[in-house]
Amino acid sequence: MTLWLGNTMRIKIFITGGTFDKEYNEIEGKLFFKDTHVHEMLRLGRCRVKVDLRTLMMMDSVDMTDADRNIILENCRKAPEDRIVITHGTDRMVETAKVLGEFIQNKTIILTGAMVPFTFGSSDGLFNLGSSLAFVQTLPHGVYISMNGKYFPWNNVRKNRQTGEFEELE
Amino acid sequence: MTLWLGNTMRIKIFITGGTFDKEYNEIEGKLFFKDTHVHEMLRLGRCRVKVDLRTLMMMDSVDMTDADRNIILENCRKAPEDRIVITHGTDRMVETAKVLGEFIQNKTIILTGAMVPFTFGSSDGLFNLGSSLAFVQTLPHGVYISMNGKYFPWNNVRKNRQTGEFEELE
Amino acid sequence: MTLWLGNTMRIKIFITGGTFDKEYNEIEGKLFFKDTHVHEMLRLGRCRVKVDLRTLMMMDSVDMTDADRNIILENCRKAPEDRIVITHGTDRMVETAKVLGEFIQNKTIILTGAMVPFTFGSSDGLFNLGSSLAFVQTLPHGVYISMNGKYFPWNNVRKNRQTGEFEELE
Amino acid sequence: MTLWLGNTMRIKIFITGGTFDKEYNEIEGKLFFKDTHVHEMLRLGRCRVKVDLRTLMMMDSVDMTDADRNIILENCRKAPEDRIVITHGTDRMVETAKVLGEFIQNKTIILTGAMVPFTFGSSDGLFNLGSSLAFVQTLPHGVYISMNGKYFPWNNVRKNRQTGEFEELE
Repeated sequence: MTLWLGNTMRIKIFITGGTFDKEYNEIEGKLFFKDTHVHEMLRLGRCRVKVDLRTLMMMDSVDMTDADRNIILENCRKAPEDRIVITHGTDRMVETAKVLGEFIQNKTIILTGAMVPFTFGSSDGLFNLGSSLAFVQTLPHGVYISMNGKYFPWNNVRKNRQTGEFEELE
Repeated sequence: MTLWLGNTMRIKIFITGGTFDKEYNEIEGKLFFKDTHVHEMLRLGRCRVKVDLRTLMMMDSVDMTDADRNIILENCRKAPEDRIVITHGTDRMVETAKVLGEFIQNKTIILTGAMVPFTFGSSDGLFNLGSSLAFVQTLPHGVYISMNGKYFPWNNVRKNRQTGEFEELE
Repeated sequence: MTLWLGNTMRIKIFITGGTFDKEYNEIEGKLFFKDTHVHEMLRLGRCRVKVDLRTLMMMDSVDMTDADRNIILENCRKAPEDRIVITHGTDRMVETAKVLGEFIQNKTIILTGAMVPFTFGSSDGLFNLGSSLAFVQTLPHGVYISMNGKYFPWNNVRKNRQTGEFEELE
Repeated sequence: MTLWLGNTMRIKIFITGGTFDKEYNEIEGKLFFKDTHVHEMLRLGRCRVKVDLRTLMMMDSVDMTDADRNIILENCRKAPEDRIVITHGTDRMVETAKVLGEFIQNKTIILTGAMVPFTFGSSDGLFNLGSSLAFVQTLPHGVYISMNGKYFPWNNVRKNRQTGEFEELE
């Protein structure tokens, strides 16, 4: 059964930061980045999919420049895996998806993130990571955003700033 | 783009119990069932996929009889949706998948569960629910088990009793 | 046994805000105040001490003015209870304790707070609330700060800005 | 100021098990004991009181024998500290308190526990630990149970089996 080669493939996970990985600095009372929590989340999910994690940067997506997006693009291109999940801030996730979507056609790439930091307990991060790892195994080549249990092709998605949710363009 | 009709479809979720929904009775110091936590989990995941939940039973899968499996089978058959997620105890999940797999060919059905109750904080439930909702949107018709970030066709899966993980038959 | 009248007394809890009650706004990615979580914390602690809660304000202690401190002082004075717990931001807790300590001698007043918001999971709030409710039942009249499992008289305490901990003046 | 020697004293914590320290075995779906979580709870509470922890046993209080209670009694007697907190199962906490109360007069001893395991997220353990560490610093010599934010002398307390709460005898 061809379809089911899925369980032996390896998936690349690129970490870029975003709310996913923010922590609370109790001395200053502010949010900051330290290390990624994706390893811990995969452990919590008892994930047995073969994954290879690499942290590219740790930043808010509002601070991302063209140079940063280029780093992400080059890493996606050079990765030996053709299935890639990228954790990313939600505010500019659509912009990065656009860059990747225009230049990469021969891989399945899923961008995902969270509205609440994983360390805060009430996070949607674990749900989104679970969805993204499933979508990356089953969707045809292309670049997608996966949030709220849904997936969106890179050229038909926007973030609704009022609700914080992702939706189709029309 | 045909594939992407996905976001408008409705998914049926059948609740049958299992570790997913167990709670701790603090007076007796034992685990028990009360109500399902799947609504709460979908809220936590900010899930915006259209779902219709229905609780069929609330039981340990080790206590399931043929009659119980028949109830699940009949409900899957009669559901107007052709995409169904079933939350289920992991101990006998494979048996139920077999019954469904032998009798239903025209729907995508995903059975999932958890190793740790959702209310215990360290649960894999939210991750598994996220994966299952993604797999059910993207896999072709058939009956599958989704655990540990993977999916398995009903006729090539077993639960490893030592590790608590699901794996292929050979 | 005189000492043990403790269990029938009623304790006043005044809420003033502070890290204790901060929440994460997922749309803006910032911390803010909504409602107090002290009710929820007392429920979690299965607290059966008779308490009467009143929210005086919901603010960061760095934003507190003399007028705000006066409101706290007046409420402590007018409360029929002679045992009072005050939840308060830690940054200026010492200043408020000083105002209360100079003007109130006939009540036991405990100021407490948290370094991490209760909603973030890893909070010290529940521990501090438990300590404070115990100290307020057993310490003689006077104004104290209770943090880190310790208690400090109002005139011999400072917050160490480097460690975030409270300590004696010498 | 005599009262305030409190902050320099050292407190002994004896671990005996109980719901406090139970964990969920995800392979067998049952509760069991592994290591104590009291270190982790003290860290979460940012506790800066000087404590010395020692695990005497790890058991359900319903399984405790006279020999077990004797071990606890002897350890309390021989401890150089005169302030002791004991974590203990709630079901037979009153019986152990009685043994200690009849034989030890020159120390302040607080027995405490939890209705829900610390690892389950919704535990009252952190609240009770905070209360107990405060009561042990401030109550006069004697043996007490501290639960639900209250303290009870050993000879005037029972566990209400219906509510799971502790209450005075009359």
